[in-house]
Amino acid sequence: MLATYLFGPGDVRVLEVADPQILRPTDVIVEVEAACVCGSDLWGYRGVLSSTTPLAKGHEFIGTIVETGSDVHRFAVGDFVIAPFTISDGVCQHCRNGVHPSCTNRGRWGQLGADGLIAGGGQAELVRVPLADGTLTKTHRPSDPAMLRHLLTLTDVMCTGFHAAVCADVTPGDTVVVVGDGAVGLCGVIAAQRLGAEHIIMMSRHSDRQALAREFGATEIVAERGKAGVAAIKELTNGFGADAVLECVGTEESFTQALSSVRPGGQMGFVGLPAGGASAPISSFFARNVGVRGGAAPVLRYIDGLLTDVLDGSITPGRVFDSEFALEDTPDAWAAMDARTSIKSLVLPRRR
Amino acid sequence: MLATYLFGPGDVRVLEVADPQILRPTDVIVEVEAACVCGSDLWGYRGVLSSTTPLAKGHEFIGTIVETGSDVHRFAVGDFVIAPFTISDGVCQHCRNGVHPSCTNRGRWGQLGADGLIAGGGQAELVRVPLADGTLTKTHRPSDPAMLRHLLTLTDVMCTGFHAAVCADVTPGDTVVVVGDGAVGLCGVIAAQRLGAEHIIMMSRHSDRQALAREFGATEIVAERGKAGVAAIKELTNGFGADAVLECVGTEESFTQALSSVRPGGQMGFVGLPAGGASAPISSFFARNVGVRGGAAPVLRYIDGLLTDVLDGSITPGRVFDSEFALEDTPDAWAAMDARTSIKSLVLPRRR
Repeated sequence: MLATYLFGPGDVRVLEVADPQILRPTDVIVEVEAACVCGSDLWGYRGVLSSTTPLAKGHEFIGTIVETGSDVHRFAVGDFVIAPFTISDGVCQHCRNGVHPSCTNRGRWGQLGADGLIAGGGQAELVRVPLADGTLTKTHRPSDPAMLRHLLTLTDVMCTGFHAAVCADVTPGDTVVVVGDGAVGLCGVIAAQRLGAEHIIMMSRHSDRQALAREFGATEIVAERGKAGVAAIKELTNGFGADAVLECVGTEESFTQALSSVRPGGQMGFVGLPAGGASAPISSFFARNVGVRGGAAPVLRYIDGLLTDVLDGSITPGRVFDSEFALEDTPDAWAAMDARTSIKSLVLPRRR
Repeated sequence: MLATYLFGPGDVRVLEVADPQILRPTDVIVEVEAACVCGSDLWGYRGVLSSTTPLAKGHEFIGTIVETGSDVHRFAVGDFVIAPFTISDGVCQHCRNGVHPSCTNRGRWGQLGADGLIAGGGQAELVRVPLADGTLTKTHRPSDPAMLRHLLTLTDVMCTGFHAAVCADVTPGDTVVVVGDGAVGLCGVIAAQRLGAEHIIMMSRHSDRQALAREFGATEIVAERGKAGVAAIKELTNGFGADAVLECVGTEESFTQALSSVRPGGQMGFVGLPAGGASAPISSFFARNVGVRGGAAPVLRYIDGLLTDVLDGSITPGRVFDSEFALEDTPDAWAAMDARTSIKSLVLPRRR
């Protein structure tokens, strides 16, 4: 089969490798219908994070189960499934607490897992899925290509944007700021609207992303960044700041800008993966009674509700995909996101 | 009248000064019945924070109104009142949001206020109270000296301990850790129990404070600190950490210890005033989906509920006062807290 590997900064290759096999009784093999490139993939692509071995890539994919291990009980061959960006057993204390990314047996796609094996990557034709019962969600195979895209966002970006809004305690009537106009930030706009925000301010300098944000529910756009951006937010909020701020980038700069935009007593949710060793001054929280919460989204806590919304058409997060590539062209999918000519690149293994 | 001033590290003096006057129509003058020394006063006493001028001290006091300005509507001469540790107008957006310490016209006792004047300090016979209508809470003058002490805790420590528990999202059935065995931490134990915590672990090395914590509802005591303290918490929580942690000290050390004791997906509330420039690594929140919230307690958001509990005897926070001084002996009250021979020192101006 074909599978995608990151060899080093800027070096993404699609290689012909052996098909994956069932290696543990709790595994299934999924034939990938659609996958995509994540903004967080770019930390490795840009050399911010590095590895000494080639890494199987792709942590967002949907597809059909083609083989099951002997100890898989919730799924059968032919099931259409959504794979979250983290692998979890579904039964440990953390999973029961709804914090699946902290699962005692947690794993990541393309990385060494608790089973002592490396899980498959999703930018491939086939993937070995460990702990299938605790990890996957079943739905109907959609006939509409647009619906395929919406479902694919439930693997990560839509649930991550929703997590940002939940962590930011967005409540009806709130004024919400979204920092970051990537796919997660745009899904954060959808999430804020779904949770009843009255004003949603998107911080963006790109006209195409501004337009999509408005269609998703943003009521105002702020193009300025840094101190000028914070000043613009203050002006839009009578000098007070926003009730809730969603940080969807993951740099110290964006964290600081987001924190400065929260009103006293307000809350910031953050889901951007901090690539460096960013730190936050405790006194800046204390002085204004601002709360901060964030981390990797527990996809399985949100997926049932969001799946309902996607299936009935009330949200359309798949519109964040503005470019599409065959699997063999995956390196171009990465390059397009790196150059910001694409908000999010879709990869379609079956289009060969 | 007699009033207390901090002249410099270790230099507290009780001086005879002119009685305060009504200076703004929204002022009242309060004759102090009881006041006390706060753990945060010690930052100045120990030279961690310094000032170039003598500061009128005391931000926790209760007493009787003896004079009112012409624009005071909620209070009359003879009313017995509780004064929170922050001054607020009660009408601005922040007050309406329940974040009184961020009031647009906020002030602090003994400090320059929004009215261009220095407010009185509470360790005195009489205090000029600015913005009385927005700041004070009225109750009946208690005949029982024990009740006087309970009411006095509502000016700060009981509400601050409660704020820590609210910020830590304590919910019924939770396992809660309290870091800090001062008056605020002890009140945090009361707060955690009031909010339904099932297990309350107090971190304390002092037998008298351990005993009081147990009487307030602590179910376990951990005497270790730092990494050993965190290890002890993990052992008491099946390796997971606590659902909620209350940080009631305000040093980088205690902040880090508290943060490390939270389980994935849990929440930390912090109310210790950070004396230095402590900072927290963002990645430590992110990795475990831990939320952090804290700041100066909005006393007026909690006081009505806690006053009811105090008056009906269901909580007895005044037991944190384990020493008592006449106003002229206030320097001894400070020294006792500095030496940790007193948990909290009561100051009684009328006992001359």
